[in-house]
Amino acid sequence: MALIVQKYGGTSVGSIERIQTVAARVKRSRDQGDQVVVVVSAMSGETDRLIGLAREIQERPVPRELDVLLSTGEQVTIALLSMALEAAGCPARSYTGAQVHILTDSAHNKARIRDIDAARVGADLDAGRVVVVAGFQGVDELGNITTLGRGGSDTSAVAIAAALKANECQIYTDVDGVYTTDPRVEPKARKLDRITFEEMLEMASLGSKVLQIRSVEFAGKYRVPLRVLSSFGEGDGTLITFEEDIVEEAKISGIAFSRDEAKLTVLGVPDQPGVAYQILGPIADANIEVDMIIQNIAAQEATTDFTFTVHRNDFPRALEILDQTAAHLGARQVLGDTGIVKISLVGVGMRSHAGIASLMFSTLANEGINIRMISTSEIKISVVVDEKYLELGVRALHAAFGLDGSTSSSSLS
Amino acid sequence: MALIVQKYGGTSVGSIERIQTVAARVKRSRDQGDQVVVVVSAMSGETDRLIGLAREIQERPVPRELDVLLSTGEQVTIALLSMALEAAGCPARSYTGAQVHILTDSAHNKARIRDIDAARVGADLDAGRVVVVAGFQGVDELGNITTLGRGGSDTSAVAIAAALKANECQIYTDVDGVYTTDPRVEPKARKLDRITFEEMLEMASLGSKVLQIRSVEFAGKYRVPLRVLSSFGEGDGTLITFEEDIVEEAKISGIAFSRDEAKLTVLGVPDQPGVAYQILGPIADANIEVDMIIQNIAAQEATTDFTFTVHRNDFPRALEILDQTAAHLGARQVLGDTGIVKISLVGVGMRSHAGIASLMFSTLANEGINIRMISTSEIKISVVVDEKYLELGVRALHAAFGLDGSTSSSSLS
Repeated sequence: MALIVQKYGGTSVGSIERIQTVAARVKRSRDQGDQVVVVVSAMSGETDRLIGLAREIQERPVPRELDVLLSTGEQVTIALLSMALEAAGCPARSYTGAQVHILTDSAHNKARIRDIDAARVGADLDAGRVVVVAGFQGVDELGNITTLGRGGSDTSAVAIAAALKANECQIYTDVDGVYTTDPRVEPKARKLDRITFEEMLEMASLGSKVLQIRSVEFAGKYRVPLRVLSSFGEGDGTLITFEEDIVEEAKISGIAFSRDEAKLTVLGVPDQPGVAYQILGPIADANIEVDMIIQNIAAQEATTDFTFTVHRNDFPRALEILDQTAAHLGARQVLGDTGIVKISLVGVGMRSHAGIASLMFSTLANEGINIRMISTSEIKISVVVDEKYLELGVRALHAAFGLDGSTSSSSLS
Repeated sequence: MALIVQKYGGTSVGSIERIQTVAARVKRSRDQGDQVVVVVSAMSGETDRLIGLAREIQERPVPRELDVLLSTGEQVTIALLSMALEAAGCPARSYTGAQVHILTDSAHNKARIRDIDAARVGADLDAGRVVVVAGFQGVDELGNITTLGRGGSDTSAVAIAAALKANECQIYTDVDGVYTTDPRVEPKARKLDRITFEEMLEMASLGSKVLQIRSVEFAGKYRVPLRVLSSFGEGDGTLITFEEDIVEEAKISGIAFSRDEAKLTVLGVPDQPGVAYQILGPIADANIEVDMIIQNIAAQEATTDFTFTVHRNDFPRALEILDQTAAHLGARQVLGDTGIVKISLVGVGMRSHAGIASLMFSTLANEGINIRMISTSEIKISVVVDEKYLELGVRALHAAFGLDGSTSSSSLS
């Protein structure tokens, strides 16, 4: 008998009919002899509806009260799913985050889980009940309701799985697993049976929005086997696991990309210690996250050129700040470019294998794609190229690194 | 500085605009120097929407889970009202029933309050905050969410007022007080400045649906001064208080009536001990509440006629049960009548004053109204008459007992 934590997102519980479908699936797991804890999100659209009500009152709602408001979304779902399970003949009991003591810090709207009291849930499981827990929410030490921020239900599920020492944490979503790249860009993209936590982290942060990144970190830290699978179809999905469990020697697991990048460059900055800090400090102070950073000796003597990328939404503000900084530093010129994308190769095999970078660069060169920036990490190589080359670049790399599957798929929606 | 508990019902918080209006009113009380605890219901329509969702799954939703579901309604309101108060510059903090430990028994959907932990609320009040508490809900000893049943927010407010030893519990509603009778029937109806708890209980149970009856009982038991007033208009409403505080010597406070009655009669029942029990036992077993009961010696020797009234909704089922009982007892005939109404005079002064009954009967006789049944209590006389005489009867009695006001009013909606 295994103990399984299953998490269903907002789309999977978006209507009474879908809640009943989820109930049937949960019941099937339990009928197979497994103990099941279900973690659910708010019905799709509900969180936005509640935020809309709050915004009618305050442009920036009081964080504590916003959490009281938003946490009702998941509470509605746990009650309805428990009813649907009971109606299907499967004993069930619902719990809010407060009721199972999902203890968090007091950072309203983006709280972090500190501890979970698994005792109550254990008693229900032993009594043969399915336990349905509200994701996304917790309580702080004073009993105030907190929420974990968007996508926090994934983290709730992993935290509960860790606390209960569950055999597996299954994240049901609207895709049937993790793919070598986005099938909408490369129809030959192949579903991966397994991927390591580190690879998944790189894939997630690079735009494969299958799992919330914090939940992957959490699962890796507490060594909770995590599986992504479809709540609508069948199949075993993708297991996210530890490096030692991966037998095949694939060099590259997948190709991630991001259309949300924008590039900023300051030309001719006097080359002196502290320049990077002087340029990036004001950007960080404005809460703008910087992704890639490159500094080069400039053509002109005793000066340097400095380039970095930000999220495209932050571009106008970043440019404004940079203009001020450049004037202050006596830099020659500021350039901005929003017509770029980032393509990344991800794979733990990269560590032990030279030549991946050169194959990547030659593949792109053969297609006539000019590389604007390069950045590397232990298990990732990212390049920035002109936006128009995104599809061409991804497909060429997908083929060059032997990722093409035999059958095409387009189930990533 | 007084400590006031204010309760606003679903209509008063039925939209963001109305919530803002309530916030302005609460702020005004606080600005006058009072400490204010606000108890709110779900936004009007929300509870029905949630019940509708549950019914799509189960005709009779699991009671425990229905409470988890329904309690979100008030939780939404407390968050929004707290935001509106903060937006208006009035520090506020919201609490669910669980958070202020409104301890109830475990009778889901109709729980009764056992205890309230006032400590947390007290600390907020001392810190100058308005405290906003979700009505209608609590928790049992195991931490399960419970609800008090429809109208339970009134009871929550009174219980909180009792626990905090509040100076007054104000129930804001869509009427501006308690009237001598329904102004839609008698435009000369007059708003009462004061009424005793006992009179209010009789008025409430007889169809003046201003306050939930349990909350009036509760207020009487814990001696919480209760005031009914309009959340839309101004004015001091009606204070519900103790007999010793009432100075005027009004014999009759008001005239209540009910259109929801139906009458059942068994003719020619053998007159033997236990007949009343044999007739009413099966009715009670079917959970049908019986109101008035009359037993008379029948014209035929050694038999008796037995008459009682039930709610009109229960009439078909009661008639069916009574037919079976009558056959079993060897009774002569069963009669049913749904074309009746009940009119009641209510007033504590009645106790010390003979002649009220005779003035009532003669007034009705002068209008040619035939009395079908009579029932009396310490502070009430009720008569059953034909439905068509309702308006005529109420108006004639209103005049005969000197209740007519100088100005007409029609604010009871």
